[in-house]
Amino acid sequence: MARHPAARGLADDAAVLDIGETRLVLTHDMLVEGIHFLSEDPAEDVAWKLLSVNLSDLAAKGAKPVGVLMGYGLTGNAEWDNGFLKGLKVALSHYDVPLLGGDTVKQPASDARALGLTAIGSCALESPPARSGAQAGDHLYVTGPIGNGWAGLQLLLEGKNVPAPLIASYRRPQALVETGQKLAPHVHAMMDISDGLLIDAQRMAGASGLSLSIALDSVPLSEDFKRAFGDSEAAHINAATGGDDYQLLFAAPANLDLPVPAVAVGKFAAGKGLSVTFGGGTIALPEKLGYAH
Amino acid sequence: MARHPAARGLADDAAVLDIGETRLVLTHDMLVEGIHFLSEDPAEDVAWKLLSVNLSDLAAKGAKPVGVLMGYGLTGNAEWDNGFLKGLKVALSHYDVPLLGGDTVKQPASDARALGLTAIGSCALESPPARSGAQAGDHLYVTGPIGNGWAGLQLLLEGKNVPAPLIASYRRPQALVETGQKLAPHVHAMMDISDGLLIDAQRMAGASGLSLSIALDSVPLSEDFKRAFGDSEAAHINAATGGDDYQLLFAAPANLDLPVPAVAVGKFAAGKGLSVTFGGGTIALPEKLGYAH
Repeated sequence: MARHPAARGLADDAAVLDIGETRLVLTHDMLVEGIHFLSEDPAEDVAWKLLSVNLSDLAAKGAKPVGVLMGYGLTGNAEWDNGFLKGLKVALSHYDVPLLGGDTVKQPASDARALGLTAIGSCALESPPARSGAQAGDHLYVTGPIGNGWAGLQLLLEGKNVPAPLIASYRRPQALVETGQKLAPHVHAMMDISDGLLIDAQRMAGASGLSLSIALDSVPLSEDFKRAFGDSEAAHINAATGGDDYQLLFAAPANLDLPVPAVAVGKFAAGKGLSVTFGGGTIALPEKLGYAH
Repeated sequence: MARHPAARGLADDAAVLDIGETRLVLTHDMLVEGIHFLSEDPAEDVAWKLLSVNLSDLAAKGAKPVGVLMGYGLTGNAEWDNGFLKGLKVALSHYDVPLLGGDTVKQPASDARALGLTAIGSCALESPPARSGAQAGDHLYVTGPIGNGWAGLQLLLEGKNVPAPLIASYRRPQALVETGQKLAPHVHAMMDISDGLLIDAQRMAGASGLSLSIALDSVPLSEDFKRAFGDSEAAHINAATGGDDYQLLFAAPANLDLPVPAVAVGKFAAGKGLSVTFGGGTIALPEKLGYAH
């Protein structure tokens, strides 16, 4: 249905629409209670996450956020709603983006909260990086440690003591807005990692019509992650398939002088399919590469 | 929180945001099952309504729709989802507006469906009409019959035989996109009637810092409405407070040569407050002026 070129076949993080001389980048992501966040997650953090996951999509296209509209379901818990508004205010101020409008609707009190946000950005680039632009010979890079969001959620679900940075990665991810703007003019393809490094990388390779080999042992893990889960092959697989990372994933020539720190984790080549190595040897692909919608 | 001038204090149908030389008009409305539509409403019609209520907000600002993004909650009923997609395709084609992107999320199967849509429009006017622009001496106009949506819903709820035009007014309202574009350069204030003529007119008067007198007997009723509900004072009150009209409501000088057919139903003056007359005499304000969020 989405045949307009601006929709990029719905196979990208965001739509890119030209109106006159202005290049808009547009995205809309929803969060549903019990699916995208835990009922016991603080409302302030849910607001932060709703904004961040959308701005992360703009970041992946190198766009500057210019405003957001929100759709908010009221289930009759004023304390939660107040916490959410407080958190939203903090998050909007952090990213310096205005709330332009939206809608507040009643949901039945027993329903899972459904929240939506549309983020609008502008981008001066002739062609904001798509998922589909990787070239044979490009390296695949990530902008930081992978698996912290998964680790935070996992420890929360297990009722364990969770190091603050891992909780923050899960509940208050950072949209890498400035990093995305710095990278966008230089990279061949870019997206954010929301569903898992392996599944998102596979999508980039597929969209680009290339094969991709990922050296799993080169995927950076944080010290907190390693303290909790080690750095074995299994730990790396969990990190690379867990999702909720919001690091940027991009393809660029190996010899490019990158404007931000990043770690090479793979290489594109002609052909198709994803292969994964660990310690120099090819390993079986995990059954689940990430969160599939 | 929404202090950015583009947000118009959240007291308008849509946000108006300038990016470079482009004037964007943006709105986001949600529909929740059981609140904004009936569970037994055909899914095709719900899709139509979701698009129309948002485009109606753009119409009220004289904007031309350039694209939409959708947030869609899946509750596990594939037949309903397919009907919705079919209806959405028809509606997008009718209004000639592209689906640019969005998000599809799972909701628990027993939850009320929550659907959101963001509509993006462009407007070349220096200042798209706000709710707040009415001037003392202006007449208040409506672009067509009022109460058809209410009448359709009422007859459906009562299990009665509903004339097709009244069902259509409730389930498949028309966003008056071209009418809005024709009117916008000429009017002082404009909005769409979604919550009820009286409550929406009161909002326009309040935002404009004026008093407003409405001659209820001059509010146009359709023949189908009159056949089902008559044209008494009570019938006019139901029509003027029922909502779901999606006619445009605007303020303009009495002597203006209007570019589209419209009916004068009231007059603005200095002061504040809403008064309503019927048959020449002032009547008590109905307790409920419309749907208050």
